Amino acid sequence: MGDIIKNLFNIKYPIVQGGMVWVSGWKLASAVSNAGGLGLIGAGSMYPDVLREHIQKCKKATDNPFGVNVPMLYPQVDELMDIIVEEDVKIVFTSAGNPKTWTSFLKEKGITVVHVVSSVKFALKAEVAGVDAIVCEGFEAGGHNGREETTTFTLIPMVKESVAIPVIAAGGIGNGRGMLAAMVLGADGVQIGSRFAASKESSAHENFKQKIIDVKDGDTHLTLKELAPVRLIKNKFYQEIQELYKNNPTKEELTGLLGRARAKKGIFEGDLDNGELEIGQIAGIINEISSSKDILEEIISDFESAKSLLR
Amino acid sequence: MGDIIKNLFNIKYPIVQGGMVWVSGWKLASAVSNAGGLGLIGAGSMYPDVLREHIQKCKKATDNPFGVNVPMLYPQVDELMDIIVEEDVKIVFTSAGNPKTWTSFLKEKGITVVHVVSSVKFALKAEVAGVDAIVCEGFEAGGHNGREETTTFTLIPMVKESVAIPVIAAGGIGNGRGMLAAMVLGADGVQIGSRFAASKESSAHENFKQKIIDVKDGDTHLTLKELAPVRLIKNKFYQEIQELYKNNPTKEELTGLLGRARAKKGIFEGDLDNGELEIGQIAGIINEISSSKDILEEIISDFESAKSLLR
Repeated sequence: MGDIIKNLFNIKYPIVQGGMVWVSGWKLASAVSNAGGLGLIGAGSMYPDVLREHIQKCKKATDNPFGVNVPMLYPQVDELMDIIVEEDVKIVFTSAGNPKTWTSFLKEKGITVVHVVSSVKFALKAEVAGVDAIVCEGFEAGGHNGREETTTFTLIPMVKESVAIPVIAAGGIGNGRGMLAAMVLGADGVQIGSRFAASKESSAHENFKQKIIDVKDGDTHLTLKELAPVRLIKNKFYQEIQELYKNNPTKEELTGLLGRARAKKGIFEGDLDNGELEIGQIAGIINEISSSKDILEEIISDFESAKSLLR
Repeated sequence: MGDIIKNLFNIKYPIVQGGMVWVSGWKLASAVSNAGGLGLIGAGSMYPDVLREHIQKCKKATDNPFGVNVPMLYPQVDELMDIIVEEDVKIVFTSAGNPKTWTSFLKEKGITVVHVVSSVKFALKAEVAGVDAIVCEGFEAGGHNGREETTTFTLIPMVKESVAIPVIAAGGIGNGRGMLAAMVLGADGVQIGSRFAASKESSAHENFKQKIIDVKDGDTHLTLKELAPVRLIKNKFYQEIQELYKNNPTKEELTGLLGRARAKKGIFEGDLDNGELEIGQIAGIINEISSSKDILEEIISDFESAKSLLR
């Protein structure tokens, strides 16, 4: 199982580490790639020159394939793309935008392109745009998310019967059983975010990593749907959003409350009260902060034993 | 796989047909039970004397075990429970209420009791109350749903690591791959609703059955969260709710718009514009109206072939 994704990226395990703002720099990406998965640098929280530095450090830290995740809403997205080409990055995951915008440009440079979708409609658009694979991300995923609220359990089979390109499942996957379940539903590989956010090599603040360990079911919620839907831990900042909702706020009022750099404040600086704490529902089963290598090996070992139980 | 649930109910396949208002009368329940699953009569849409009639007809139509689903918010719930005992029903699924209220009463009569939950907290409460098993229903399920919005993919493993009683997964399961995925995640059996709502023996109106076939991903939404969260097809009535939301409605205004018998109007009478059309996200993969027997046999055949692919 998973050969299509292993061959597409030339990796040992069909596991992608999701690109996450303030979490996945060169340290995490290279650790995951060195351990046999596909590490992704999350460009969304990096100035262009910071991204260049992370790519250069990642190349020094691993000989294995790695990629960069680019949210296309990024203001200077063209600068990021130029750096990616200049630095000879071989794999790019695009998200939060139209897959047509950058796919041909990247494919012409020989780059493998994957686009993140949360609906059948956008899966089809990505296929038409010529991407090599798609990530299908369900409602349970942390951070920014689709408007349709389709869950991983239903999204994967619906997308799989609609497209011919490889499908990587994301949202709710945190261990080997989750990986196997996603592949039973039709996924060719998986993308895992929250579990790696709580890894030793994650650049998240220790406070945030500890918070991930503490999260139980029902402790996250998808909110700010009028701006861009985002799944957050229900902290003080989240409660302030809910208070504001009672007054039927305008988009401007919501944007005003959100302010700037909330995700940095929470995830990178560790302000658990006032920061935007993006994590997935599956945080409820995450109980320890491990190295990326141990996480990958445990997932694969669980995956194999769950599979053998079915024999 | 599934022996715990097969033995608990004395059935051939570990598949429960969910109790659904205006859908699951004696015809559907007995057809599912005759085909080797566990059929449930949905008491939520029945007057007490109507429930008695359905139980009596179901007993005549099948020699196999069947059960009754009772939403505990039902106004004359004590009348329903008395009828269940008088008619010697052996299996009761309770939902929408405190599992403590009726479990001892039913258990003392020798009845197998299962409670429907949507969070770890209520799973633990049900276990303490002494139920024989729980149904864990994810956010993607149709109709009434939990406030935590936890999806099947994350709810099953979180509940499974918290309780010792058997866990039946519900929400998003519509075929054999879904059944296998749920069991890989830790479920001992599955409950399937939407797929049987579109069966030949379902008492839903033909218009509603056809609508289920037409539903694609993104066509349902969980709404009316201030009353009781319910997943509906986005029809004219749903759009009226969304219009009302723009004016920050009170609970009374929402209740006023909802009115009475909306589910009957939509599901049973086939008024697709003005009715409340309760269905799960997995309707997106339902493509035909089959007999319950064919549905069960197809699910089991798909389940076995999906399992053999893992070897």
